[in-house]
Amino acid sequence: MAMPSGASMHITIRIQFAKNLVSFGDIATAIGQAGGDIVGIDVISSSKTHTVRDITVSVLDSKHSDLVVDTLRKTHGVKVINVSDRTFLMHIGGKIEVKSKIPIKTRDDLSRVYTPGVARVCTAIAEDPSKAYSLTIKRNTVAVVSDGTAVLGLGDIGPHAAMPVMEGKAMLFKQLAGVDAFPICLDTKDTEEIIQIVKAIAPAFGGINLEDISAPRCFEIEERLKQELDIPVFHDDQHGTAVVLLAGLLNALKIVGKKIEDIKVVLTGIGAAGIACTKILLAAGVKNIIGVDRHGAIHRGVEYDNPYWNEYAQLTNPENISGTLSDVIKGADVFIGVSAPGILKVEDVQSMAKDPIVFAMANPVPEIDPELAEPYVRVMATGRSDYPNQINNVLCFPGIFRGALDCRAIEINEEMKLAAAQAIASVVTDEELSETYIIPSVFNSKVAERVREAVIKAAYQTGVARKDDIMFKPE
Amino acid sequence: MAMPSGASMHITIRIQFAKNLVSFGDIATAIGQAGGDIVGIDVISSSKTHTVRDITVSVLDSKHSDLVVDTLRKTHGVKVINVSDRTFLMHIGGKIEVKSKIPIKTRDDLSRVYTPGVARVCTAIAEDPSKAYSLTIKRNTVAVVSDGTAVLGLGDIGPHAAMPVMEGKAMLFKQLAGVDAFPICLDTKDTEEIIQIVKAIAPAFGGINLEDISAPRCFEIEERLKQELDIPVFHDDQHGTAVVLLAGLLNALKIVGKKIEDIKVVLTGIGAAGIACTKILLAAGVKNIIGVDRHGAIHRGVEYDNPYWNEYAQLTNPENISGTLSDVIKGADVFIGVSAPGILKVEDVQSMAKDPIVFAMANPVPEIDPELAEPYVRVMATGRSDYPNQINNVLCFPGIFRGALDCRAIEINEEMKLAAAQAIASVVTDEELSETYIIPSVFNSKVAERVREAVIKAAYQTGVARKDDIMFKPE
Repeated sequence: MAMPSGASMHITIRIQFAKNLVSFGDIATAIGQAGGDIVGIDVISSSKTHTVRDITVSVLDSKHSDLVVDTLRKTHGVKVINVSDRTFLMHIGGKIEVKSKIPIKTRDDLSRVYTPGVARVCTAIAEDPSKAYSLTIKRNTVAVVSDGTAVLGLGDIGPHAAMPVMEGKAMLFKQLAGVDAFPICLDTKDTEEIIQIVKAIAPAFGGINLEDISAPRCFEIEERLKQELDIPVFHDDQHGTAVVLLAGLLNALKIVGKKIEDIKVVLTGIGAAGIACTKILLAAGVKNIIGVDRHGAIHRGVEYDNPYWNEYAQLTNPENISGTLSDVIKGADVFIGVSAPGILKVEDVQSMAKDPIVFAMANPVPEIDPELAEPYVRVMATGRSDYPNQINNVLCFPGIFRGALDCRAIEINEEMKLAAAQAIASVVTDEELSETYIIPSVFNSKVAERVREAVIKAAYQTGVARKDDIMFKPE
Repeated sequence: MAMPSGASMHITIRIQFAKNLVSFGDIATAIGQAGGDIVGIDVISSSKTHTVRDITVSVLDSKHSDLVVDTLRKTHGVKVINVSDRTFLMHIGGKIEVKSKIPIKTRDDLSRVYTPGVARVCTAIAEDPSKAYSLTIKRNTVAVVSDGTAVLGLGDIGPHAAMPVMEGKAMLFKQLAGVDAFPICLDTKDTEEIIQIVKAIAPAFGGINLEDISAPRCFEIEERLKQELDIPVFHDDQHGTAVVLLAGLLNALKIVGKKIEDIKVVLTGIGAAGIACTKILLAAGVKNIIGVDRHGAIHRGVEYDNPYWNEYAQLTNPENISGTLSDVIKGADVFIGVSAPGILKVEDVQSMAKDPIVFAMANPVPEIDPELAEPYVRVMATGRSDYPNQINNVLCFPGIFRGALDCRAIEINEEMKLAAAQAIASVVTDEELSETYIIPSVFNSKVAERVREAVIKAAYQTGVARKDDIMFKPE
């Protein structure tokens, strides 16, 4: 299965050409002969001898783009300065900005927001640090922290290259939940250093969203920060995925009429996301879950190199079954994949219990091709936007942080995550619910608000909300 | 001299009152009897028995505010929930926010700014990290870094309490120069840790503005970061003050018709700002400068506990004079104070050379009361907005970073600082120049652009600009 480009291809080519050597007509002809369709022209600068223009061209794909650009490169008198496609253009200069909430119009304004007036505000916080929540950006601001070691499916690409993802995340935080998020991409991979840095920068922030940090470091970093900071710390790759998976599963189980306590679940990929998914399923009431990694089903009686697998074996696989994925999937009600492309065979699905539920969430290529699986599954979900039932963290992180910030929660605990999953699931009404609609769209405007309310309620019920405001307390 | 409040006093008092015990008329009477003038009323909530209102009251000063609030507190049936004045209200919820530059309207947009499209942008940066400047916020973003140890005149008030200043700085960066600045307030005072943290968070930023970090740690932190990072690092308390001082001095010297090479300067307060001011004056051509601290004139032949003073003695005081401020000020052309209130006496000014120039920049109370000095000085400048010639860093940092970012300078060097000072001075034309107008207003819109241009030119001339763009190159 090829990765979809996810984007129509408009490219913008900045060229400089010598007026005495080539005319724009020649250039247009060359582009046309290469199969490109000019859709826009902007003159950037022009002198007696040379002109610089941005030419926007519609092309079929990347390969076609290269062909058009090569044709121009070979055209006498033309110099290709730069080529950008629409996706790149949306990233030029970065995707977020820092803005003042109020303009400084007069000297009087200046003396209030800055010296000397600000001194009184600083003093008030120095005397009572909890006032940072009312008098600074802390109450609405989340750090999106990454070290760039596990970015999308790209792996360890470093902190600079991770920035476009973290900026995108900040956009989504703002657009979907009004949360101010700022990317902190760290030029270190040292666990202790990352812990220490995040603790040190915490004063400005009301929450920490850890992102794209590779396992097993992500576990210790999150665990330690949760213990050592008094603001919520949430590794989205683990818990965001887990929350949205559970939301989808709750609705899928409604369709097949099975109870969560009764189902057998097989989960592949016992890394950060897999372990988090397992834990939330156990917390939600699943009794029988078997984890499978490259050595087969994880079970007790083996000493794994990976200490997390030994712990995993203790929590799961009640019948202590061993074997391959094909062995243990027999009779399972639910398959959950957070692993690798194509590892689930059609025969495996055929060996599952009646009404198989398959969450094949490997990105961009799922554990089984949805079209191959389709005849044999009752409910199918993937991580992709081009199939029904996309399991997308975007459904979770904006609302869960919105709720945690609004009640000044000291953490995001298991109850808050369960509440978030139930809230996401609840957006799909019983009337709407179907095999191809178990999870709301990422653009469903009800989701973040529903999640926020549920999370706040759970935070008060579990005693982790600090804000003493009756408006937010549960009935 | 009392510190000016810098703000008219409107306070907003949130009260809850029991309707059966007290009427709003009673409350208004109580406020009036305490001398308060009600200028606004907002009903926040109301039930059968109770109502909550925000009452905005004009009062004379803080003491009067306390009196009004106390009167309300003593009124039967009234509970004072909260009191805010206008300055505090401007800080509620913080003063800056993070915004998306473009809305995510469609699934297609989402697939470009976030997964899967963003992966191509990440890969492009991973392959060529310099693309971070075109494809992320780096090219326009500055970290405003403080540990909260030397905030305004308040001293070590900690990172939470420092936030309102850093947010105010971010507002000014954006409003005056379009720079996106984000506050990083660090919960550590350890020099090595601060250096390591700033290095680690640098990938997102195109520059580092150090702020309100106490001496001597600020010297090492800045020096090390300048060496170890390839983006500009600028401790504003040192160099911002120095640049604006020099700008004012250049214009003051025009008025008195003296050459910078010929003047004798006495400077009090040999801390971070004093040392930076001294260095920029030496770089600008001053030959005879004598630093004075609490032990008197700093001179060679003494071993000071403070290693920076020993270094200072080597650079200054060519005639190696010792003595008190009153001793060494005799015959001086210029006094520069970055020290403590009231240390310069009228007699000291009287003993200076003809046409004394006095920069008394201690805040909020200058080294000499401007009204006492007035009969004896030719040109007088302070750090205050309520006297002419305010030496305010706001004239420097927005433009100097704007210029450094625009040419992708690897540092802000001495030549760029000198160029910035000359640019600020140049905004005051020869026709406008007078004893009471040696430095432009902080709201003069020409300043940041003039500084930017001068800084870019100096950066190219000294080979520290990385951006290969003829538009920005000097003629």
